[in-house]
Formats: sequence, C-alpha cells, structure tokens
Amino acid sequence: MRFATIRSEHGPKAVVQVGNNFVDVSAVDSSIPNSVRGILAGGDAMLAKVNAAAAAANAPRIAVADAQYLPPIPDPQKILCIGLNYRDHALEGGREIPTEPVLFGKFANTLIAHGESIRLPKVSAKVDYEAELVVVIGKAGRDISEADAWDYVGGYTVGHDVSGRDWQFRGAEKQWIIGKSFDTFAPTGPVMVTKDEIPNPHELQVQLRLNGQTMQNSNTREFIFGIPKLLAFLSQVITLEPGDLLFTGTPPGVGVARKPPVFLKPGDVVEVEIESIGLLRNSCIAQS
Amino acid sequence: MRFATIRSEHGPKAVVQVGNNFVDVSAVDSSIPNSVRGILAGGDAMLAKVNAAAAAANAPRIAVADAQYLPPIPDPQKILCIGLNYRDHALEGGREIPTEPVLFGKFANTLIAHGESIRLPKVSAKVDYEAELVVVIGKAGRDISEADAWDYVGGYTVGHDVSGRDWQFRGAEKQWIIGKSFDTFAPTGPVMVTKDEIPNPHELQVQLRLNGQTMQNSNTREFIFGIPKLLAFLSQVITLEPGDLLFTGTPPGVGVARKPPVFLKPGDVVEVEIESIGLLRNSCIAQS
Repeated sequence: MRFATIRSEHGPKAVVQVGNNFVDVSAVDSSIPNSVRGILAGGDAMLAKVNAAAAAANAPRIAVADAQYLPPIPDPQKILCIGLNYRDHALEGGREIPTEPVLFGKFANTLIAHGESIRLPKVSAKVDYEAELVVVIGKAGRDISEADAWDYVGGYTVGHDVSGRDWQFRGAEKQWIIGKSFDTFAPTGPVMVTKDEIPNPHELQVQLRLNGQTMQNSNTREFIFGIPKLLAFLSQVITLEPGDLLFTGTPPGVGVARKPPVFLKPGDVVEVEIESIGLLRNSCIAQS
Repeated sequence: MRFATIRSEHGPKAVVQVGNNFVDVSAVDSSIPNSVRGILAGGDAMLAKVNAAAAAANAPRIAVADAQYLPPIPDPQKILCIGLNYRDHALEGGREIPTEPVLFGKFANTLIAHGESIRLPKVSAKVDYEAELVVVIGKAGRDISEADAWDYVGGYTVGHDVSGRDWQFRGAEKQWIIGKSFDTFAPTGPVMVTKDEIPNPHELQVQLRLNGQTMQNSNTREFIFGIPKLLAFLSQVITLEPGDLLFTGTPPGVGVARKPPVFLKPGDVVEVEIESIGLLRNSCIAQS
C-alpha cells in the first residue's frame, strides 16, 4: 500500500492510494487510526483492515492530483539519520570510510511535505541538497538482530536531508545536528510505501535533480551498511518505535564537493526520486 | 507554580503543587489541557486559569508523597542540549572553550522521571553523569532577540544528561548524539517551576551527588552563554515550541575527567539538585 497524510478541513488525514485517488480509510472503518504512525503501530492486523477499507465501494476519495500533502509521517517520535553511508560520498567529502554507522539527528521542526518550500536561512550561505532513502519503522524494538530486522521495517519514503554546510562543520566540536536542523530542512514524501511493495530495498535507484539537471544518481546497492545492520546497530542504543524515520545517507554528487561548489538559491527546484517509491519535489525560497 | 505530570489510572495527568498536595487542575476546569506542554501553549491566560483552578476548594488532590512521577514534560517536541557551557568543564575535558554555543540533541527514548531507573547498557562501559539546569520553552518563537528571550521561557526543571563516553566519542566523526541517546539517559523532574518563581536563573546552585558524595557543585552564574544568548542563537536555526527542553550544559566534576575516572555501576544512586527547583533522584540498574 501507498500511504499519504493530506490536509483536510478537519485536519490531517491518513489516506491510502488506490489508482488515481486517495481513500480516507478511517472514515470507512472507525477502528482505523487517523495517522500513519497509529496504523503502523497496529501491525499486520491493522494493515489488513486498512487494505479492506481501501477497497470499500463507499469509501470517501480525493483525487491524488488535488491532494495537499503533509509529510507521510508528520509526527515521528525520532528522525534518525546516518552519515557517510555511500563509500564514494565519504570520499568526495574527504572523510574516512566509516567502520560502523555514523548517527546524527534532525529535530522535528525540519519536516516539510512534498510541494512545500525549503526556506533558505538568512544566516547560512551554504545550503546543500542530499537525496536519501528513508526507512519508516513499523514495530517497536530494541536489541534487534540483523536476522530479525525486516520485521521492524514498516515501509519507505523519499527524503531530502537539506544541510547548511557552514553550520554543520562549525566550531571545534563539529556537531552536525545544527546544520541539519534549520526549519524546513527535512522534506519527506509524497507517500510511504509499505515494505511488501519493495522486494529489494538494496536495489533502488536514487536520483536528485536540481532545476532539471541530475546531480546525484546512484543506487542503494552502494550502501556501506544495509538496513538490517543499521537497525541492529541503532537498536543496541535506542528503542525504535513505529513511525520513526531513518534517513539512510546520501550518495555522491552533493553541492559542497563540486568544483566550483553548488549551493541552493531562491527559486531552485529540487527533485528527489527513488525507484518504486516516489518523486519528492520542493522549491527554495529566501527566508523573509 | 510547580507543575508535575503523574501517573493515574486514566493515564498521565498534569498537576500543580499546592503545599503537600498535587491538584488535578483539568478536573476542576475542563478548558485546561491535561498536559504541561498544552498548558504552556496556552500562555499567560491559561496559567491564570490554572492558578485559579489550583485554589478551588473542591479540587481533586493527591499527596505529593504518593505521586508516581512521569517526566514533567513527557512529550517534548525537541530535546535540545548545549555542550561545554561551563568554562572549567570544557577545560577538564581538554576541549576548547567554545566561542558560541555547541548544540547536540537527545532522542525522545531517553526521557525518564524522578524515581525511575537509569538502565546501564550492556554495550557501554563508560556511563557518566552530568547535572544540568533545563529550560522549558513557554512560547513558540524564531529569530528571538536576546532582549526578548525571557518572554519565550516557560519555566525550569532539573535534568541529568547521562552520557556513554565510549559512544560519545566513537569513530572518526565523533557525533555525540549516539552516546547521549541510550534509553533512560535523560532523567528530568520531578517538577517544572514556572519562571515567575525563579527571579534569577543565572544564580542557582547546581549539585550532583553520587551515593551521597558530592561530585559536581557549581552555580549557573558560571555559564559561558546565558539563557538569552542560547535562545537567540538557537532560534536563528530552529523554531522553538512550547514544551521544548533545553539542557544548558554541565559544570565540572564529571566522572570521565576524574583520576581515576568514575563511571556509573548498578546500584548507584544519583541525585541532581538545583536550588529553588528541586531534587531529581535516580538509581542505576544493569540492562537485563
């Protein structure tokens, strides 16, 4: 299934795509939570209910073309992010190849939807793009083994890890999180695709286009650390919860590594496209 | 006022301390939200309502001695943390004195209450303590000036920034967040004190005792960056929201800087006490 969260006159609505429409599944069956996070927390039994509701003849529908998107998971408990998970991206940045996953985070103020604007801050002159596959956690877990890891995946969405490079590497301590956490710096969506629709998430083309020009073009087969390894590693430390987002790292081609460097400017349009998952488009505006 | 969030048979309850009791203010006036975050979001008008409800003769009460605490803000949108905000703590760790605030974060899985146990993970052998004043944001804001910063403070609580040193400085990139984000690594509470009760938050004694022995003993007057500077700096990047927690850094005396170093072990009892705010006590258990 393909889930979205859209705006409605009654607030955010969790919907499921059926053809060219989104179906309001909680209007069909009131035991279905009106949030993708809540649906994921209900596990396979809830997904079966949603599947049945989406097929109901009387289900309220809205055309996909008319939808106003929110992030597919507008309220994750955590936004976990992996750095340097493509060997050639680590090298282009002059970093060491990590021997284990590098974790950072983004705060909740960063989340925006497909079609919303990335706001370029007054105080950063080096805002860069990063295309990323985002894993959405489906089940709570801790100390997850690599063998069991897929049980904890709920689905996937497209993510854009916008990064203020001048702030990411600022000061002696170089804690990345501040450069990654400007308002609007985490576009995700438009939809979350459940894992059953993606037979091999380690074989997905990941592309980023800036004003139509391809800037990143790689494949998740190039991951240094695959999804089971990431979940096993992180869950030694952190209990994962349904709806948590895991940004899995970006491939090479980022703006800061180019000669001359390329940074985002007002009017730029960034498209991140991941095979079988979707196309996430956001334009850039100057902070007013 | 002194707010707590306590367990009840109907779930978490936001309560106000009156003498030796906690008053269930939303039971008196149903227009009062049943969460400290929700109350803060209502601003001064809501605080006035809460104040009136707390004084009602018929208000349901529970003895403070019988309360089972949750964190005062169990559901903050963000847990913002400042590193190296006491000059002598930066020096004891062999770090440079920062010229501007150093931001890191903790994920939501870290929050526990007064009286709950800090779980020492199997995979970390160097779990350390850090006493911290925590500022609770009271009003949403962005690009806040230092002059206006106090308008955005809702109150204060006591925080413990438990830190797995072996994970904090792990790998070439040394992103602190993973070492700061083990489950249970952010005790806060027992109460949040509204700002009107703390005439000068830059003049508060901060102490940490480990099994009764004083390990940290300083005063917030030693801050490198005061609260207005922190809010102005962060809000250039991040929209602050009511209920957001801001850990303001720890004074010297941490375990890792001692010779020989001191790390937490099962059975240890850690007390963080901040003048006029409260005493936060947690014991340590081994991860089972």
